[in-house]
Amino acid sequence: MDTPAPYGHTPANCRAREILGRIGDKWSLYVIAQLSDGTKRFTALKREIDGISQRMLTVTLRGLERDGIVSRTMYPVMPPRVDYALTPLGRTLLEAVSFLTSWAEEHVEEIEATRARYDTRVEEFSALD
Amino acid sequence: MDTPAPYGHTPANCRAREILGRIGDKWSLYVIAQLSDGTKRFTALKREIDGISQRMLTVTLRGLERDGIVSRTMYPVMPPRVDYALTPLGRTLLEAVSFLTSWAEEHVEEIEATRARYDTRVEEFSALD
Repeated sequence: MDTPAPYGHTPANCRAREILGRIGDKWSLYVIAQLSDGTKRFTALKREIDGISQRMLTVTLRGLERDGIVSRTMYPVMPPRVDYALTPLGRTLLEAVSFLTSWAEEHVEEIEATRARYDTRVEEFSALD
Repeated sequence: MDTPAPYGHTPANCRAREILGRIGDKWSLYVIAQLSDGTKRFTALKREIDGISQRMLTVTLRGLERDGIVSRTMYPVMPPRVDYALTPLGRTLLEAVSFLTSWAEEHVEEIEATRARYDTRVEEFSALD
């Protein structure tokens, strides 16, 4: 397994880490995944991402636009229409993110079983108090 | 590019999404990356992860232990010694995470340039007010 160790203390690593902190955010990951099948309007994204507030979706999209991962296209119509899409850079990120989402899908059963065992153990410890 | 679309509405996908939300957390990603080069003590992790509080490190480690990603070994010595390491499952996650960290390293310059352009544009708009 060839795993880079990107957490040394070079200036470039510190900067990459900051970017990772931004992208490795639950809502950003959801938005990126939702845009994987094409251009979407704000309202469609809002509907498809369970539990996201209007404000949080706005903030997330603005961050991704600022990073050059998502593009925003406004149409001068009434009512106003705004489309969001992954940029070419965003498409390369999607590929990287997909390894993480596949991993989560693949291991969901195993993780849930582990959690159940952990919670039982914690309860047993609590019962000893 | 073979990109899975893991955000449909099957029960398994909803569960995978919840796991992704837990793991796609900045501090979890940092801890996983820090454990990539082997077993570490709490104090070493605390020192190596810039800006993490004692409480946040405790919470993050407990979550990763509950998910079966990190193992915790206590030694009955004085002062108490607790070691943390990636489990075999955690090692498979590390591989998936490494695609994301490599992506961030590779695109750091491009993203910073895009941000600078975005911020200039926003300032120009503000100046029009």
